[in-house]
Amino acid sequence: MEIKSTLQSNIDKLDFNNLEFGKYFSDHMFSVQFKNGKWEEAKIMPFGPIHCSPATHVFHYGQAIFEGMKAYKNKHNDVLLFRPLENLRRFNSSAQRLCMPTVSEELFIGGMSELLKLDKDWIPNSDKKSLYIRPFMIANSEFIRATPSNDYRFMIITSPTASYYKGQTNLKIEEYYSRSVEGGTGYAKAAGNYAAAFSPTNKAKEEGFTQVVWTDAKTHSFIEESGTMNIMFRINDTLITPELGDSILGGITRDSIITLAKQMDIEVQERKVSVKEIIDSFKNNTLMEAFGVGTAVTINPIDSITYKDFKMTIKNSTDSSYASQLKNELLSIQYGKKQDVNHWTIKI
Amino acid sequence: MEIKSTLQSNIDKLDFNNLEFGKYFSDHMFSVQFKNGKWEEAKIMPFGPIHCSPATHVFHYGQAIFEGMKAYKNKHNDVLLFRPLENLRRFNSSAQRLCMPTVSEELFIGGMSELLKLDKDWIPNSDKKSLYIRPFMIANSEFIRATPSNDYRFMIITSPTASYYKGQTNLKIEEYYSRSVEGGTGYAKAAGNYAAAFSPTNKAKEEGFTQVVWTDAKTHSFIEESGTMNIMFRINDTLITPELGDSILGGITRDSIITLAKQMDIEVQERKVSVKEIIDSFKNNTLMEAFGVGTAVTINPIDSITYKDFKMTIKNSTDSSYASQLKNELLSIQYGKKQDVNHWTIKI
Repeated sequence: MEIKSTLQSNIDKLDFNNLEFGKYFSDHMFSVQFKNGKWEEAKIMPFGPIHCSPATHVFHYGQAIFEGMKAYKNKHNDVLLFRPLENLRRFNSSAQRLCMPTVSEELFIGGMSELLKLDKDWIPNSDKKSLYIRPFMIANSEFIRATPSNDYRFMIITSPTASYYKGQTNLKIEEYYSRSVEGGTGYAKAAGNYAAAFSPTNKAKEEGFTQVVWTDAKTHSFIEESGTMNIMFRINDTLITPELGDSILGGITRDSIITLAKQMDIEVQERKVSVKEIIDSFKNNTLMEAFGVGTAVTINPIDSITYKDFKMTIKNSTDSSYASQLKNELLSIQYGKKQDVNHWTIKI
Repeated sequence: MEIKSTLQSNIDKLDFNNLEFGKYFSDHMFSVQFKNGKWEEAKIMPFGPIHCSPATHVFHYGQAIFEGMKAYKNKHNDVLLFRPLENLRRFNSSAQRLCMPTVSEELFIGGMSELLKLDKDWIPNSDKKSLYIRPFMIANSEFIRATPSNDYRFMIITSPTASYYKGQTNLKIEEYYSRSVEGGTGYAKAAGNYAAAFSPTNKAKEEGFTQVVWTDAKTHSFIEESGTMNIMFRINDTLITPELGDSILGGITRDSIITLAKQMDIEVQERKVSVKEIIDSFKNNTLMEAFGVGTAVTINPIDSITYKDFKMTIKNSTDSSYASQLKNELLSIQYGKKQDVNHWTIKI
């Protein structure tokens, strides 16, 4: 790996007390080019623009995938990653769905580790903040024919971050628009999935909601996920979440929360969750909690869910709520404050 | 509009007898930036790379749309465009679905006209070739948060081209993968739609097919479109094509062919077309023709369609086939050889 350090760090320009999600980037970036059927030599270099032909394939045919991860600092100033191999596994699954080359552990974890060593000072010393890591791959052949690209670029950039959502989370159950469908790309972290979701989300925002709750494209009667989060419900004392399928993004936070809940002796059900079940449980007062889970948000309590004109206001989480307990448990592991019995964190 | 001409044309490097679709680009490109809620001054400049932050929005969240058009030369050396306002209308419809700003006729047609005047020599003098025009828009804010971009770039590049497909066209009816679904982005020329189609198409290619025939995502029993083309069938003497919906791209060639067919007193039906109907009509010898239509291919006869293990070999088109007649009619209008009663062509 070729490493070219910056001559002038930008870290002094950053106010760590005023972070906005994904707006500020650390000094360096990792980059490697795929050409003639193989990955070339990887490079770490100062964060800066890349040159792109206007015929760059991703501009036209959308082969682009990404991952979202975080680096945390423990009290000893060690840098911790959380289940990075799971991100690699999902990244390669996304790559295959979009006809893109897969990347090795050496490139993905190795590249990330070198980058984090160089930009260690950009990882906030705070258990409310972290360094968001964005590995991504774009197609960059320079022809405009609707066939897969020959060339690809895999990059990693990082951005210091505080929390993602602010304020209340009021969701609307989507009845017309679809995020994905069986046989589509919903399970992949494909750039195009996000672009497709913006307009329905904006329409919901115009109606006063924070996000939509996506339902299955065929019947709009089963809940899939919400915005950029997986969704979980506590009905009585059972934690229920939609089972994965190829239209749902399999979140690593989702998987971790399920594991932690089971270890806390909470009954967990991964299965189809109908809109009707949520409405019925709300009406008979057994819908105790609803929350979103994801890397960016960790756990985000949902204040209300609206179906047509029926608004279900959900009690905000208390210290004894599943959401609070699970969030504390997860963050304690991620920040290295608690024994990591599942061996999820790795030290760089 | 600011126009900066190239100092050194590349036209002498191009062999017009060996064109590959979308590989060679003319000397200039059109570019205009959307910032702070409005389009800035448009520019025409030498074709060349643009600088992109690795955080450029399109790399991560896929807001990217395009159009495909062609410029033709008639025997008087005039430059003709075919129904460009229809491309503008569709481009803006795509933009709205993807939460991107719309562009004016002045930018779209005006920009294209100026570009074509400057690169007129790149339009082949041949009624077998044309200059493919690629207007496209990408999101280029430099933050990685899953919300719509604030900034966008609209560009037009052009590429001299001969025919698109070569050889036989053997299609497979797709039974599992989906290109789009009701409530999705299938009717938009969104980059992500193409990326999603590559893997299913590659799988079909590995099985010896040219492309897939997409079916509806809900039941896979109705035909939608094929690869990068709309699809038409002649059953007895009736021309039948799937009716448009939000999962099907409304082709301008499709619309033109329907109009021309009606003017040639061919009965045309735009309606749901089931896989069963095609199989039944093949079995009782009433499936006379099948062909794809689109800007890149114009009209492309289909040699066979396979459903599960059942291969339907369709007679190749003859001079009296609908495909041949309609293709001749359309090309005659596009190349200005025939009276254009529908006022479809405009002279630059």
